[in-house]
Amino acid sequence: MRELTAADIPALAAGCAVVGTGGGGAAADVVGEVRRVLERLGPVPLVELTELDPATLVLPLSGIGAPTVSLEMPASGREPQLIRAEVERVFGLPVGAVMSSEIGGSNGVLPVGWAAELGLPLVDADGMGRAFPEVQMVACNAAGREVTPIVLADVQGNVATLHPVDADWAEWHARALTVASGGTAVMADYVLPAGELIGAVIEGSVRRALRLGRAVDGAADPVASLRDALDAPLLVRGKLVEVERTTGDGFVRGSVVLQGTGADRGRLLRVEIQNENLAVLEDGLVLASVPDLITLVDAQTATAVATEELRYGQRLVLLGWPCDPLWRTPRGLELTGPAAFGYRFPYVPVEDADRAAL
Amino acid sequence: MRELTAADIPALAAGCAVVGTGGGGAAADVVGEVRRVLERLGPVPLVELTELDPATLVLPLSGIGAPTVSLEMPASGREPQLIRAEVERVFGLPVGAVMSSEIGGSNGVLPVGWAAELGLPLVDADGMGRAFPEVQMVACNAAGREVTPIVLADVQGNVATLHPVDADWAEWHARALTVASGGTAVMADYVLPAGELIGAVIEGSVRRALRLGRAVDGAADPVASLRDALDAPLLVRGKLVEVERTTGDGFVRGSVVLQGTGADRGRLLRVEIQNENLAVLEDGLVLASVPDLITLVDAQTATAVATEELRYGQRLVLLGWPCDPLWRTPRGLELTGPAAFGYRFPYVPVEDADRAAL
Repeated sequence: MRELTAADIPALAAGCAVVGTGGGGAAADVVGEVRRVLERLGPVPLVELTELDPATLVLPLSGIGAPTVSLEMPASGREPQLIRAEVERVFGLPVGAVMSSEIGGSNGVLPVGWAAELGLPLVDADGMGRAFPEVQMVACNAAGREVTPIVLADVQGNVATLHPVDADWAEWHARALTVASGGTAVMADYVLPAGELIGAVIEGSVRRALRLGRAVDGAADPVASLRDALDAPLLVRGKLVEVERTTGDGFVRGSVVLQGTGADRGRLLRVEIQNENLAVLEDGLVLASVPDLITLVDAQTATAVATEELRYGQRLVLLGWPCDPLWRTPRGLELTGPAAFGYRFPYVPVEDADRAAL
Repeated sequence: MRELTAADIPALAAGCAVVGTGGGGAAADVVGEVRRVLERLGPVPLVELTELDPATLVLPLSGIGAPTVSLEMPASGREPQLIRAEVERVFGLPVGAVMSSEIGGSNGVLPVGWAAELGLPLVDADGMGRAFPEVQMVACNAAGREVTPIVLADVQGNVATLHPVDADWAEWHARALTVASGGTAVMADYVLPAGELIGAVIEGSVRRALRLGRAVDGAADPVASLRDALDAPLLVRGKLVEVERTTGDGFVRGSVVLQGTGADRGRLLRVEIQNENLAVLEDGLVLASVPDLITLVDAQTATAVATEELRYGQRLVLLGWPCDPLWRTPRGLELTGPAAFGYRFPYVPVEDADRAAL
């Protein structure tokens, strides 16, 4: 057992942005807010799942909605308390720990502040090992855990408890409420005792994000350091020459085009987006796709750029690396592979696709 | 205390269709289903609010969504049980009686069958005294009752409990879930003890609907009998020459044009629709508008025609008559007057508007 301090937040955010693959909300935007919470309330204990009593109720929290909306309509701050109160009423048990539902982007950072405000430890694990845009794309679902009641709270103070028949209905109903709330809300899903989360979450993901952030911080060649830390088989340098992006139905959707520079001069890559970077296409080839991780980082600083921050003319490096093995199982691919996003191409592991393209 | 038998259902449905002002779902379509339930399970006790212990929890139920959708996607039949179980869990009290949230249309008839299936009496009252398209347009809201948790169940078996901050948010969130469920669901709202419903509902509306249905049944001149029973100041005979209607966002919207016939030859009336008939316009004059009641009935049988059943060429009689005094209070008009539906014209009571038009 160790703890997260206010000083850890910038590196944690940098790492969460990298594994956010462009989504999960812009992690840098919430650094100040979460740091101030920890300065006020002190460090948050970071616990392993196995350190908790197996009966301890864990509260997986995340923001849901289009990241672009949460930039303009910040949370009220009361959402975690509203959710905790409703969860304890519905489950008839006290909540013993907070977990990130999604380590990627701001969703990996905000739960640290929420844990501090609720006076609870944070579990060193998350539900995705990255960011994914939809509620059913979560390790608990891939691992066959039954969907539990889902609790949402919005900026107005509305609270809703959904008892969906399955994870797909959880997504449709949670998304519909989020859109009705103006496009963003805070959500608890797969609220389970610690013992039932073992084998159904990605463990160690908080410390891993922290390590990635620290690898870049102060490095002589940040991009090279990050690539080494990720062991990323795919790396392309370029300039953004096209950005097409819309916000609707609770998502940011679109695509961007990266024109190769330096050693990659002459290459033209299209990155497909639904909140996260979903696929990289080049000359009819798929270089990488979900569930593998695809992140665009600043060519100088290796800072990950969220999909809602992409602008024409940015000099970027595209990195692609393998996902957690859980997502490469048949059930994992069914939930988060290319077909789950409407693509007709088959999934090829990023380490193989890169070799094919060279 | 008396009871409703299977034999009462056709007349009840005819009366509910009349006070449904075109909405609340086509009452005739559910007669067979509700009659069979009562034939199987026996009559349903009909109780006055004041006959109940003031602490008895009353469950106001209604279908929510576009009536056109519920024609094609009927309920599973499990919705009332799912809602009762969730309400009893949330409120920690047994439910003691069922009430129609909305006496108009099928929503005035279905709760009789639901009460039979739940083994509970039906309260002789409802939340509107007619039909209105939106959740916040309910007497409990006009009377200043706080919105309680709202429970929805859909055909798939999904159950949701909303804790909205006010009645407007109740409408937005309930509607969003209904649309996500495919366009129709069953809902409980303003779940309150009987004592708190007194003065916040329209009492006697079940027996009134039954009386209206019986006034028409077997009458020599059904339209004249109905007009007498309603004491309706507005009556125009005509033929439907235009029907414009779309289903979306959980509503049926549109307008129809009635061309006067007989004594009304030469008149051209436009009826505006949002699930219900909202306003009647003629030569720039408003003849009638919400919250007063506007119903189109068959010129021969005086059977009320639901907005989703309106067809080109139908011979109809338009009737308009005053709403319950509760809706003419400032708060009542704020919730259900023309401005609440986006119209810029002021509310003029139907008995005055008719004189102005003559």
